[in-house]
Amino acid sequence: MNYDLIIIGGGPAGMTAGIYAGRLGLKTLLITKSFGGQIAKKAVAIENYPGFESIPGIELVQKMEKHLKTQKINIEINEVRKIEKKEHDFLVFAKKKEFQAKAVILATGADPRPLEVPGEKEFIGKGVSYCSICDGPMFKDKVVAIIGGGNAGFETAIFLAKIAKKIYILEYGPEVKAFQANQETVKKTGKAEIITNADLKEIKGDKFVSSIVYKDSKTKKEKTLKIEGIFVEVGYQPATSYVKRLVDFNERDEIKVEFETCQTKTPGLFAAGDLNVGAIKQIVTAAGEGAKAAIAAYNYLTE
Amino acid sequence: MNYDLIIIGGGPAGMTAGIYAGRLGLKTLLITKSFGGQIAKKAVAIENYPGFESIPGIELVQKMEKHLKTQKINIEINEVRKIEKKEHDFLVFAKKKEFQAKAVILATGADPRPLEVPGEKEFIGKGVSYCSICDGPMFKDKVVAIIGGGNAGFETAIFLAKIAKKIYILEYGPEVKAFQANQETVKKTGKAEIITNADLKEIKGDKFVSSIVYKDSKTKKEKTLKIEGIFVEVGYQPATSYVKRLVDFNERDEIKVEFETCQTKTPGLFAAGDLNVGAIKQIVTAAGEGAKAAIAAYNYLTE
Repeated sequence: MNYDLIIIGGGPAGMTAGIYAGRLGLKTLLITKSFGGQIAKKAVAIENYPGFESIPGIELVQKMEKHLKTQKINIEINEVRKIEKKEHDFLVFAKKKEFQAKAVILATGADPRPLEVPGEKEFIGKGVSYCSICDGPMFKDKVVAIIGGGNAGFETAIFLAKIAKKIYILEYGPEVKAFQANQETVKKTGKAEIITNADLKEIKGDKFVSSIVYKDSKTKKEKTLKIEGIFVEVGYQPATSYVKRLVDFNERDEIKVEFETCQTKTPGLFAAGDLNVGAIKQIVTAAGEGAKAAIAAYNYLTE
Repeated sequence: MNYDLIIIGGGPAGMTAGIYAGRLGLKTLLITKSFGGQIAKKAVAIENYPGFESIPGIELVQKMEKHLKTQKINIEINEVRKIEKKEHDFLVFAKKKEFQAKAVILATGADPRPLEVPGEKEFIGKGVSYCSICDGPMFKDKVVAIIGGGNAGFETAIFLAKIAKKIYILEYGPEVKAFQANQETVKKTGKAEIITNADLKEIKGDKFVSSIVYKDSKTKKEKTLKIEGIFVEVGYQPATSYVKRLVDFNERDEIKVEFETCQTKTPGLFAAGDLNVGAIKQIVTAAGEGAKAAIAAYNYLTE
């Protein structure tokens, strides 16, 4: 089957693009591993998507997914490996399947940035987690460390404070960067200890994580903390490895776009949401970009 | 009182900017004539704002307004007449009041475009309407004309079909431009007659509208329709007359911005939503731009 439009990704940008594409009558396929993107993993309620004062991430995802599914578009749960251009069309290669379309919207967002320290890969699922809301409940009454003193780290601490016995927050710099409101909420839990100038060196354990080693970058001394879980919150990196040549990247591997339409350097190929170079990455901005990309794709297809 | 930020406008862009500004802890004033902008006047339910499958415009406005009011920001119901720059600050002149801030977000959206034919101004409120949802109920069992065969015109017809006896839809061009789905819904009502190539010349009446005169641009003949109400749906024009010199405009009086941040040519002055040059004007894109402008204003104020 040859589609008008293939949307890759099921976060707020991809789902919004799907809602618009369906309403515009485009023969559309949406390919995604799962729905919700980063929203589905948010540890605290979402309070900045206009129209919902406070809503758990997973509920907002369900509402958007239900909204998407009111449209007559096809949905394929799969992972895209490669995109190529063949004359005027795009070939999209997923696991064991291949699809073709006249236009493509890339909306695969961003994945958690790894720490890249010894032990990290070895202990994934054995104490190392990138999603507190997924894995947090396994750490009831345990001692855990959160790596990263930004808003994501502090929001993770707020969530884990209801579960864990004690929480260390390790921040690489001399000061944490979370908003004051998040810092105050964490303080009130009485469970968190904040360690700044902490340069993580290694994750240790046997079958399961048992400790971490960090260097105090002021005193230059190495210290060990006995912990049973590590939550990595050091930011995100764009999920753009499957698309090459057809787009240009900046130094952070984000896709360059013309912001008014989200079109990349290849006509008919658009990039909406956290994977593009836009500096401001929010749920509602990703959704707005999904709408822009879908309408721009419609214009591209009908002009 | 000297504010960090003044937001002008209470539509989706302005309300979203307000939600973000409040959460970012900016000392913020939002000035608007009313809440909701064009959403408040939508004749049919909104089905393209992600998260709400189908919601009456006024309900979405109420949800956003309630969301906005969870934030500690000041709200002034007023109309802005002029903005000036005074050293590093902006002076905002409203009716009988004057405000000052370090940054300003313009988010006054767009107003209905007038027809500019004889009789139009004279009969405003006496049969000539720019808002079917506001004025429609006055036309129970009457014969009305809608000027404009785009989606707005057809959505107005769908709404008015429940009220009026008969509806003429006059389209200037040789074909109507509404989506097929809207055309089919209008057809099903059995109440609408579509007239293409209709060049409206005059609105006539005594105390109240009684007829319209149009020229058939194919046959060059003038025709008269006896009608009791006229709904003008020929598009929108940006509400930007109160801001001069500090911004550049395109030929449609839309404000030029740098799309990544919505900043105008004046540092600290932003324009989000339907009043800027962005080609794609949707509720969710306006909301996304409101978020971008608020975060960009925060960065401007803290850098």
